[in-house]
Amino acid sequence: MIRAGIHGATGYTGHELASILDRHPAVEIAFGTSRQSAGRNLADLYTQGPDLPLIDPSSAPVGEIDFMFLCLPHTEAAPVAVAALDAGARVVDLSADFRLRQAAEFEAWYGEAHPHPEFLSQAVYGLTEIARAQLAGARLVANPGCYPTSVLLALFPLARAGALSGSVIVDAKSGVSGAGRSPKQHLQFVEVAENLSAYSVGRNHRHVPEMEQALAAWTTQPIDLIFTPHLAPVSRGLLSTIYASLREGWDEARVRETIESTYQGEPFIRILPDGQHAALAHAAYTNRCVLGISVVKGVALLTSALDNLVKGAAGQAVQNANVMAGLDETTGLV
Amino acid sequence: MIRAGIHGATGYTGHELASILDRHPAVEIAFGTSRQSAGRNLADLYTQGPDLPLIDPSSAPVGEIDFMFLCLPHTEAAPVAVAALDAGARVVDLSADFRLRQAAEFEAWYGEAHPHPEFLSQAVYGLTEIARAQLAGARLVANPGCYPTSVLLALFPLARAGALSGSVIVDAKSGVSGAGRSPKQHLQFVEVAENLSAYSVGRNHRHVPEMEQALAAWTTQPIDLIFTPHLAPVSRGLLSTIYASLREGWDEARVRETIESTYQGEPFIRILPDGQHAALAHAAYTNRCVLGISVVKGVALLTSALDNLVKGAAGQAVQNANVMAGLDETTGLV
Amino acid sequence: MIRAGIHGATGYTGHELASILDRHPAVEIAFGTSRQSAGRNLADLYTQGPDLPLIDPSSAPVGEIDFMFLCLPHTEAAPVAVAALDAGARVVDLSADFRLRQAAEFEAWYGEAHPHPEFLSQAVYGLTEIARAQLAGARLVANPGCYPTSVLLALFPLARAGALSGSVIVDAKSGVSGAGRSPKQHLQFVEVAENLSAYSVGRNHRHVPEMEQALAAWTTQPIDLIFTPHLAPVSRGLLSTIYASLREGWDEARVRETIESTYQGEPFIRILPDGQHAALAHAAYTNRCVLGISVVKGVALLTSALDNLVKGAAGQAVQNANVMAGLDETTGLV
Amino acid sequence: MIRAGIHGATGYTGHELASILDRHPAVEIAFGTSRQSAGRNLADLYTQGPDLPLIDPSSAPVGEIDFMFLCLPHTEAAPVAVAALDAGARVVDLSADFRLRQAAEFEAWYGEAHPHPEFLSQAVYGLTEIARAQLAGARLVANPGCYPTSVLLALFPLARAGALSGSVIVDAKSGVSGAGRSPKQHLQFVEVAENLSAYSVGRNHRHVPEMEQALAAWTTQPIDLIFTPHLAPVSRGLLSTIYASLREGWDEARVRETIESTYQGEPFIRILPDGQHAALAHAAYTNRCVLGISVVKGVALLTSALDNLVKGAAGQAVQNANVMAGLDETTGLV
Repeated sequence: MIRAGIHGATGYTGHELASILDRHPAVEIAFGTSRQSAGRNLADLYTQGPDLPLIDPSSAPVGEIDFMFLCLPHTEAAPVAVAALDAGARVVDLSADFRLRQAAEFEAWYGEAHPHPEFLSQAVYGLTEIARAQLAGARLVANPGCYPTSVLLALFPLARAGALSGSVIVDAKSGVSGAGRSPKQHLQFVEVAENLSAYSVGRNHRHVPEMEQALAAWTTQPIDLIFTPHLAPVSRGLLSTIYASLREGWDEARVRETIESTYQGEPFIRILPDGQHAALAHAAYTNRCVLGISVVKGVALLTSALDNLVKGAAGQAVQNANVMAGLDETTGLV
Repeated sequence: MIRAGIHGATGYTGHELASILDRHPAVEIAFGTSRQSAGRNLADLYTQGPDLPLIDPSSAPVGEIDFMFLCLPHTEAAPVAVAALDAGARVVDLSADFRLRQAAEFEAWYGEAHPHPEFLSQAVYGLTEIARAQLAGARLVANPGCYPTSVLLALFPLARAGALSGSVIVDAKSGVSGAGRSPKQHLQFVEVAENLSAYSVGRNHRHVPEMEQALAAWTTQPIDLIFTPHLAPVSRGLLSTIYASLREGWDEARVRETIESTYQGEPFIRILPDGQHAALAHAAYTNRCVLGISVVKGVALLTSALDNLVKGAAGQAVQNANVMAGLDETTGLV
Repeated sequence: MIRAGIHGATGYTGHELASILDRHPAVEIAFGTSRQSAGRNLADLYTQGPDLPLIDPSSAPVGEIDFMFLCLPHTEAAPVAVAALDAGARVVDLSADFRLRQAAEFEAWYGEAHPHPEFLSQAVYGLTEIARAQLAGARLVANPGCYPTSVLLALFPLARAGALSGSVIVDAKSGVSGAGRSPKQHLQFVEVAENLSAYSVGRNHRHVPEMEQALAAWTTQPIDLIFTPHLAPVSRGLLSTIYASLREGWDEARVRETIESTYQGEPFIRILPDGQHAALAHAAYTNRCVLGISVVKGVALLTSALDNLVKGAAGQAVQNANVMAGLDETTGLV
Repeated sequence: MIRAGIHGATGYTGHELASILDRHPAVEIAFGTSRQSAGRNLADLYTQGPDLPLIDPSSAPVGEIDFMFLCLPHTEAAPVAVAALDAGARVVDLSADFRLRQAAEFEAWYGEAHPHPEFLSQAVYGLTEIARAQLAGARLVANPGCYPTSVLLALFPLARAGALSGSVIVDAKSGVSGAGRSPKQHLQFVEVAENLSAYSVGRNHRHVPEMEQALAAWTTQPIDLIFTPHLAPVSRGLLSTIYASLREGWDEARVRETIESTYQGEPFIRILPDGQHAALAHAAYTNRCVLGISVVKGVALLTSALDNLVKGAAGQAVQNANVMAGLDETTGLV
């Protein structure tokens, strides 16, 4: 039985992770922490449990666990990760702390010095389908952001094959749980219902450098990325509609064949047949990333749907941990 | 041109009121106040205006206005009302401060001493259709709560006619704007969407004494009131499903005839024909209260729908002011 | 491995049932039928599977199965059930055909003669928690309606204990999936969103006789039942707010103790602690019925939430089949 | 008083139009038609009126009206329009029949021969802000589609100024009322809620030629248009997120200045300040088109929001009629 600890168990991601691990046949949750709700039970904070007593982070028995999952704000996660590594645990960090490889880039986007830049080079960027080989021996995994997961899984086959010609526009729509559980004016029901709004348009969102870093590793073609996230009136789910300019010679058949062959046999990638495109409902409450493919006027028009709390966060974290632990990758996931 | 001031213009009720008054052909908004947003414009806080510079309450030119509307928290409204009365303005108070006639009752339900009990006896409880005669000369009007408006308009004809036999159960469902604009955990989109929940069940909601006080004034029959409000996943609108036990001799025809004759010619009361019942959509964005009528096994089963921000708050406030000012009661309202 | 057939697999209930059985470790789906979609696959009709080829009902190999589940319209289910019984299968009928014990009552409420009144007496009314003993040997089970399940589970302990004094008012709110999958004007998104409406009020809904029949079996006290269902703007979930008049001597402690002791150890009944009431979110996507308890002015105020597609339909059907088959009752259910 | 007739008054657009005209101070509704609901009243079909008896189209007194509004399906509108023109009425056609100038193009996109190609050349394409001069004397106005209105108002200033360099990608999100009132499976509440889906992606939607025709009239630069509409879980509202490649020399300041100067003084165009982008809530229930402007990596990133039933249909129709009749363009509109 793998013993796992969860830091930051009370946010939407922490709760989703605790729920998945609670049903996981090979994992036992050793502890969950919460600064604000220590002493209470996670089941009292949510309408649907699980039963998990919450302890203060300072009293977490870090030495007794095999895996540490971090659902903490950026810059708070890194020191906890380092302490866990020191104590011998393997770490899956769901924060942004180890996603960017350059400390300077982290500082530029997050406005603070990175707490542990010396660990950046050893962290594995955990897009499971792509990083599987490195995950087996990894001790520190940076779990990708929800937007990057949806975008990068769609673009990886094309980027690697040299199909991209430079312009990538991502028009993404996310459910409200992606914005976290802390009460905020613009996340109140009355503000969101019957509304739909763009935010952090262009190149302002912190997931931009994460996507650019990955693309740069897969293709020598410089990419001009434009990214427009929207807040959609749904609780969970994320749909990226991607417009990627193609090099000559890339028609729809070749694009489809490239993507399909890349993901053949992947348990959590579902490629829709010709003429169909992805919707939130294809992926809700599952660890799947569902892809739709068209090519129009030299542009790959890809739709990529996932559940932001599952494949976009907690589900992929467990998928990564399964690989790290040598388990069947689908254990505990649907 | 009537000059009006609005205290507390930035909440949902204040904004709705400002929007109605902004379009009102006989009213000019002299000022709107906000403690937190003084110096800003109401149009910057909402996606749809109106254009209203916000000033600090302390600098409100109370001497220059004819009508003062108060959208303030309870116990904060009363002193402002008294100051406005002293300055010669007429006051429509949308808070709970002057709704209950007994200071002891106020204290029992709101947990604080009433700031100005000496004004309780002169305040008119502004259910417009019922209080019209007193409103003409009123200087201080207590605008009813949203739940009481929906319930009392439905029950008034029966209570006055002696039809009620003692048991009244109100199962009410309210949109989320009724809970105010301040960010709260349980009002976040993710918590409300695809959910529906009872709260303050039985006799715990502060609107209970307000309803009981009115019923006691209309009928000598003691009423056992049970009231269960629910939070519904809609932004605005309020539906009360009312089960009122009837005295012998009251069948559906007589109940219907009594209610219809009471409200004949009322511009804002709409009584649905036999077999139809009220839905939120009947009243949304209007100042109407829409009533459906059945009688089952000796119980009047009434449905009463209104828009909690309009007839349940700002609209009825304007309706009251129209009557106070001798205007056509429907001016500026739909 | 138990072999199961599903008649009417393409409606919301049929799809939910197929999804549950597809994950059920002890069941193999032998076939799913659809009159309109024979030749297609259930996975093509829904965004999320399961993979189930649909055959015409006429070609269903009824002799090869152990269990037949019927998700058919009333009067269509009965002949299919009888044929399945003849062929040796055990039947769980999710339609209304075998819920009422009197053919005359069926005819009065459904407007048609019952196709097989001779089977009414042998059908077990499958409220699992209550009928468990009879289910073990049952060959024909009438799966209860969604509203009756929520109401009867709440009232059973009190009815059986003689606590009810005659008046029961049920104010219920259901998600839209309860109204079926066939396109209808009033179920379109635009009609339902931001709306909430009562329908079939009083004693007009076909679930009324089903509830009265059960109550009559549990208590000698004649019950005046008033039932008001509402259509709520959610996809799934059902909340019944129940007002049941109590006999003298029944205070909140006794009511709570009676309900808690009745359901002690029940895996799918969750009783909320004092001061809490049920919300749709407590039960969504689970087979649970979640109960909240208050007593106010001699009235038991009970809230009862369940997922109309799970505990209110397909989940309870599987729960019943588990008992019938001698499996752990929770197998394949959450 | 202008006398107006409405053909097809019972759809969402027809109802919205009837509601606007019912409040319009200079218009009297002479009649509303419905094939299916003749003999009934529009107020009986909707929760909120207006009071409009519905007559069969064949008995419409076409000779007694000044303006005829057509809310009919394509190919049905044209013959009715021609008959109305013959009878001396001026026509605002909300269908697609007179939007495309080439009969061959109509046939290619709508799959049927155009019923009256001889009228195509005289129809004015009624984007009010742009066609105002021609509208004054127009007898036949083709009211633009909802998507084209949002896209073309955003792009017109840039197209006319020669700013576009060839690639235009439109990622649009529409509320469900845009798909009409007839019950359809994919428009049921359960299918739409908590979902978001792309449809008719690339160049498959019938609004593509309408947009291309207008752009071709404004700029000599050939435009590669890619258009992806999405169905969003809201009842009304439409947001187009537009990515238009710019020629050299066009930075954000110049783009903004060009758009702002084009629409200076326009009552129904609202341009958001720097750093803000359009949301559905900016335009809901108004005749406004609200624009947000950014430039990123040589691409104009424009957001354009409107209410699909108002500025995207009935509101713009009335705006056009106001201009045609020489009234203040804002009469009866908000």
